[in-house]
Amino acid sequence: MSLHKVAQATAGFTGADLENLLNEAALLCARAGRPFLNQSDLHEAMMKVIAGPEKKSRVITPEAKKLTAYHEAGHAVVIHDLPTADPVHQITIIPRGGAGGMTISLPTEDRDYESKTELTEEIAVCLGGRVAEELFLGDISTGARSDLERATDIAHAMVTRYGMSKKLGEVVLDTGRDEVFLGRSMARTKPYSEEVAGQVDQEVRALLDAAHHTCEDILKARKAVVEKVAQYLLEHEVMDAETFLTFFEENKQTAE
Amino acid sequence: MSLHKVAQATAGFTGADLENLLNEAALLCARAGRPFLNQSDLHEAMMKVIAGPEKKSRVITPEAKKLTAYHEAGHAVVIHDLPTADPVHQITIIPRGGAGGMTISLPTEDRDYESKTELTEEIAVCLGGRVAEELFLGDISTGARSDLERATDIAHAMVTRYGMSKKLGEVVLDTGRDEVFLGRSMARTKPYSEEVAGQVDQEVRALLDAAHHTCEDILKARKAVVEKVAQYLLEHEVMDAETFLTFFEENKQTAE
Amino acid sequence: MSLHKVAQATAGFTGADLENLLNEAALLCARAGRPFLNQSDLHEAMMKVIAGPEKKSRVITPEAKKLTAYHEAGHAVVIHDLPTADPVHQITIIPRGGAGGMTISLPTEDRDYESKTELTEEIAVCLGGRVAEELFLGDISTGARSDLERATDIAHAMVTRYGMSKKLGEVVLDTGRDEVFLGRSMARTKPYSEEVAGQVDQEVRALLDAAHHTCEDILKARKAVVEKVAQYLLEHEVMDAETFLTFFEENKQTAE
Amino acid sequence: MSLHKVAQATAGFTGADLENLLNEAALLCARAGRPFLNQSDLHEAMMKVIAGPEKKSRVITPEAKKLTAYHEAGHAVVIHDLPTADPVHQITIIPRGGAGGMTISLPTEDRDYESKTELTEEIAVCLGGRVAEELFLGDISTGARSDLERATDIAHAMVTRYGMSKKLGEVVLDTGRDEVFLGRSMARTKPYSEEVAGQVDQEVRALLDAAHHTCEDILKARKAVVEKVAQYLLEHEVMDAETFLTFFEENKQTAE
Amino acid sequence: MSLHKVAQATAGFTGADLENLLNEAALLCARAGRPFLNQSDLHEAMMKVIAGPEKKSRVITPEAKKLTAYHEAGHAVVIHDLPTADPVHQITIIPRGGAGGMTISLPTEDRDYESKTELTEEIAVCLGGRVAEELFLGDISTGARSDLERATDIAHAMVTRYGMSKKLGEVVLDTGRDEVFLGRSMARTKPYSEEVAGQVDQEVRALLDAAHHTCEDILKARKAVVEKVAQYLLEHEVMDAETFLTFFEENKQTAE
Amino acid sequence: MSLHKVAQATAGFTGADLENLLNEAALLCARAGRPFLNQSDLHEAMMKVIAGPEKKSRVITPEAKKLTAYHEAGHAVVIHDLPTADPVHQITIIPRGGAGGMTISLPTEDRDYESKTELTEEIAVCLGGRVAEELFLGDISTGARSDLERATDIAHAMVTRYGMSKKLGEVVLDTGRDEVFLGRSMARTKPYSEEVAGQVDQEVRALLDAAHHTCEDILKARKAVVEKVAQYLLEHEVMDAETFLTFFEENKQTAE
Repeated sequence: MSLHKVAQATAGFTGADLENLLNEAALLCARAGRPFLNQSDLHEAMMKVIAGPEKKSRVITPEAKKLTAYHEAGHAVVIHDLPTADPVHQITIIPRGGAGGMTISLPTEDRDYESKTELTEEIAVCLGGRVAEELFLGDISTGARSDLERATDIAHAMVTRYGMSKKLGEVVLDTGRDEVFLGRSMARTKPYSEEVAGQVDQEVRALLDAAHHTCEDILKARKAVVEKVAQYLLEHEVMDAETFLTFFEENKQTAE
Repeated sequence: MSLHKVAQATAGFTGADLENLLNEAALLCARAGRPFLNQSDLHEAMMKVIAGPEKKSRVITPEAKKLTAYHEAGHAVVIHDLPTADPVHQITIIPRGGAGGMTISLPTEDRDYESKTELTEEIAVCLGGRVAEELFLGDISTGARSDLERATDIAHAMVTRYGMSKKLGEVVLDTGRDEVFLGRSMARTKPYSEEVAGQVDQEVRALLDAAHHTCEDILKARKAVVEKVAQYLLEHEVMDAETFLTFFEENKQTAE
Repeated sequence: MSLHKVAQATAGFTGADLENLLNEAALLCARAGRPFLNQSDLHEAMMKVIAGPEKKSRVITPEAKKLTAYHEAGHAVVIHDLPTADPVHQITIIPRGGAGGMTISLPTEDRDYESKTELTEEIAVCLGGRVAEELFLGDISTGARSDLERATDIAHAMVTRYGMSKKLGEVVLDTGRDEVFLGRSMARTKPYSEEVAGQVDQEVRALLDAAHHTCEDILKARKAVVEKVAQYLLEHEVMDAETFLTFFEENKQTAE
Repeated sequence: MSLHKVAQATAGFTGADLENLLNEAALLCARAGRPFLNQSDLHEAMMKVIAGPEKKSRVITPEAKKLTAYHEAGHAVVIHDLPTADPVHQITIIPRGGAGGMTISLPTEDRDYESKTELTEEIAVCLGGRVAEELFLGDISTGARSDLERATDIAHAMVTRYGMSKKLGEVVLDTGRDEVFLGRSMARTKPYSEEVAGQVDQEVRALLDAAHHTCEDILKARKAVVEKVAQYLLEHEVMDAETFLTFFEENKQTAE
Repeated sequence: MSLHKVAQATAGFTGADLENLLNEAALLCARAGRPFLNQSDLHEAMMKVIAGPEKKSRVITPEAKKLTAYHEAGHAVVIHDLPTADPVHQITIIPRGGAGGMTISLPTEDRDYESKTELTEEIAVCLGGRVAEELFLGDISTGARSDLERATDIAHAMVTRYGMSKKLGEVVLDTGRDEVFLGRSMARTKPYSEEVAGQVDQEVRALLDAAHHTCEDILKARKAVVEKVAQYLLEHEVMDAETFLTFFEENKQTAE
Repeated sequence: MSLHKVAQATAGFTGADLENLLNEAALLCARAGRPFLNQSDLHEAMMKVIAGPEKKSRVITPEAKKLTAYHEAGHAVVIHDLPTADPVHQITIIPRGGAGGMTISLPTEDRDYESKTELTEEIAVCLGGRVAEELFLGDISTGARSDLERATDIAHAMVTRYGMSKKLGEVVLDTGRDEVFLGRSMARTKPYSEEVAGQVDQEVRALLDAAHHTCEDILKARKAVVEKVAQYLLEHEVMDAETFLTFFEENKQTAE
């Protein structure tokens, strides 16, 4: 149930990765007996390189499938309704690598910096899956772990590295420069007082709670869309951007 | 007195383990003078590989035997009464490896994720043995140590890794990613404030206390079954799933 | 002034230790000009292997001898009066290895697990020597150090490993699994909050204080026996189980 | 969006750096077909060596460009209005190395020591860019990270190394001498009490907050100049000292 | 101004040390042209091996000499008046090794254990020098450093290793077994709560304060003796046990 | 602006240093065309070896020169007025090594120990430069850093190593023996409770504050002398002991 931005992933591509990507695409093209690579070959190759091969043979219980469908629908609908989030490109509940499903968004442009608004909405996008589980299935799962880690990391960086908390001010508490020597947990060793440590915890928590409420508001307002997206995924396993947007159109017409 | 899920154990099987398993089964089959492996050969072989060989020669005091019988009966009855726990497959008080006895449950399906409800009930299953000692023997023993460790680990992960505590919210406090460099105790070094550390302790404690009460409620309500299961174990040492379920039937009829 | 359970020590015996033991016994037997090993040879050999050779040449001041006699009498009388403690086998104030004296108890059976009651009484047995110094000599000494360490270790394990404190619940705070990498003090690094750390300290202290009072109650009630045992030790240096029990018989008659 | 003092950078120049600088200048001169190095060759060479080559090919979104323009305008205007800050030499929003833009100031003299007043104003200069983002664009970005780190470092040094806080007195809490062995986060390990740690945090915060208000006061008073500088940068990408000063002249005349 | 017990020092003697000692004695004997070693040769040789050679050439200011004289007089008089302290053997203010002077006491017997009373008085003996500086010279010096370290170590061990504090009880907080791996400061890393850490500090302090008062009481009562001992040392530099005891006799007669 | 005691520096001289010193002196003597070394050759050679060669070519701003002049005047006048401080030998504002200026004092005798009074006054001598900056120039600078470090080190040692604080008593909290393994910051890791850590901070602070007030009292009372010394230094760069003492004479006469 991890969340991928294709651009984010490709940004870190090395020459070897790109060669790998093209070979994969060429192979898919050759298997299909087509003379030239088309966009579908490249797309599938990219997914394979980024998230690992599809695991079609893995037996999935109906409960797990339902959980994944609502989880991904949650991510996708939150993405759609947040102004700065990159548009949804594809949603899938076919397992790939270690993930049960995936919502892929495509950034429309290169960004050098991220604003406070963008980071705040990115946290909400991360929590969309978990909140959907809670609202639509009445139980939550361990599947949201990597989403929650990413959300925590962003919130922590906003507060301790980017001076984006009014409460803490523009102090940089965590330079993130010590990761080399003794691993991450050492790097986070507090060089500040218990009082400030408590304020950091409160601010990180506040950012995550606010994002949680954003998700609740969106997913409650979009209840019908979430249901439809989840049902579609349970039937077809994959959903493209166009189909996804159709549900919002229908929803709008119904709402009128 | 450890608790095994066969599927959990076999999940981590390597090719070498499987070869080992089949050789053990073939050996047992050959010793019995049978031409083909039967299910009993495979079962005994699996137990041997997972939990070590039976230690029939070990002299056990009557007190220790009684303790083990009630402890395992406690695990088994709690498992039976919790909706999401995997059904009991076998209960034994023949020592194997380092354990005095064992309750084996068989998952009915593969699970990729575990829900909050499942994890909550898993903690109760772990505590079932200890609570039975307390209620039926009036003393508690060091034999529950690995059960308590597992219960603590699950509760700790729910609170600090899976964002399943309302009090702490969706913050990931322990990524579990630092185990490589300096061993476990380093990895748990707190990167958060005393206040949050206190909340974690309270929430972990609350989960364990709730599970303790669940066990008490079940074992008090099922007092007659526990007594019968323990007596049966003291007489026959091993109990299969069918016999185990019979006691519940009888109990139901009595209750009517 | 260390306290030995023979069975505890022999439990960890390797093949090499046993060979060593038999050679020692054979040597003692040969020196005595006897054709066959008798129980006394085996006993002396075992003591030599476990606690080191007797140091008959060491000059001991009368004060140290008196201290040791009352200290060992304290251990022995507390052992006698606690239901779950293993019976006293021998008491000696001949120095051996690093210890000034020794009280040896013999378990009547193999135990796989220890109950809360057994561990609670074991702490009291450890403190018996120190409390005797206090009550009978009016001063305390550094000789109790290893007794106090053992008592603290048991109490600490009850609270942090075996979930035997009502106040702390069934949480496992110290898994004891980190000893390999950075030695003991690292392993005990707190992965929990100050509040829980304080509760651990209070519970460990409470267990030790309760054991102290148990010792005081026993030793005050058995004042006459302690005096006689100590006097006997000062005269004969070694006391066997039978002689030890005689004093209690006399005491009982007197009391009647 | 980093802030450079040319002298500061050149101060650390080795012979090899200088050779590198001259070769770069010679190359630029040769490419331009000129017989002798002129000041422009040296300037461009110096910029290249200090901040890396210009990245003219990098595609920048209009939003990022606008952000950079106001950020740099903020730095420059704050520098202009603070008595002890070195005068602005050049402002550019052409990306170089890892920075989106740069404000270069030229110290008028060598300084061996820095006074409390100078350090206090230097913190304000660092925060000028971030405060401009907030006041003129209504959102803040991650681009200020290195500015905030530098501001925090100066404030921290004033309080813990240079005894410049009335609240903490002339105690040196951080000698900065431990950086060699275990990296920075280790060096900052507190050798003082929680109370003093809290006072350090409060004083560092107070210095940063005061600098923030200084920036707000200056940038609000100089609103028209900031707007003009930013617009000019969006049009021409580079601004020299003379042009920069002209805007203040106009502003003054308008204000009269 | 360190304090030596000859027996303590010789206890740790290796064969090589003893050889060294005898060679020194033989050399002194040969230099004196005597055919056989006498007690004086052995004594001087022992002093040389334990505390380093006399530094007769070192120029000492009258102030330092006076300080040392009163400091050593303080140690010696406190030793004399405490029942369990080993009798004074020699007092000297000739510098040896790193020490400006020395008070040597000779234990009358081997001790395996030390009682609480003995340790309590040993702390007072350590502080005798410092308290004499305070009472007789009105200023205190850095010369007491090793005395204070030894006093702190004894008090710390009484509280944390030997269970000799009523306030802390019989808990062993510091096993002293971790010194091997990471040096002393690591070994003292607290494995207990802040509350207990605070109690340890209070108890260590209380033991030192009590010892301080013991010294004050003795040295005020023995004012005349201290003055005479110090004056004698300033004149003769060395004082033997007999001379030392004479001053007490005189004092007694005066007091009568 | 560092403070040197010549004797302190020469105490650590190795044979190689002395050879170096004599060679320097010989060179200076030869350059001057004199046949024999005179005291001036030795003095200059000693300064060069201790503090590095004069940096006459370094361009110094008038502000920096003024700062240095008042800073050194502050040190010198405080030294003059404190009874236990070693007399001023020379004051210079010619940069040497890393220091902008220097006040050299010459101890009149060898000292083995330092008294509480001496250490207390030594702290005041360290702070004299900083306080002069504050009183006479109205701003403070980073130039006092090494003075403040030395003052903090002395105060910390008085409180934690030499038992010279009434509040903390004679406990040795910092033995200073751990510096070898993990560098200084590790060595200062607190082996005591937060409460004691807070008391240490308060006492260190109190010693520094008291020294600050001592400096203020002296420098305000000697305002005229400080001004004259600073003016003289600005004119002549170097001042010897005689000239320095003259200003006090004049001042006295004026005061009469």
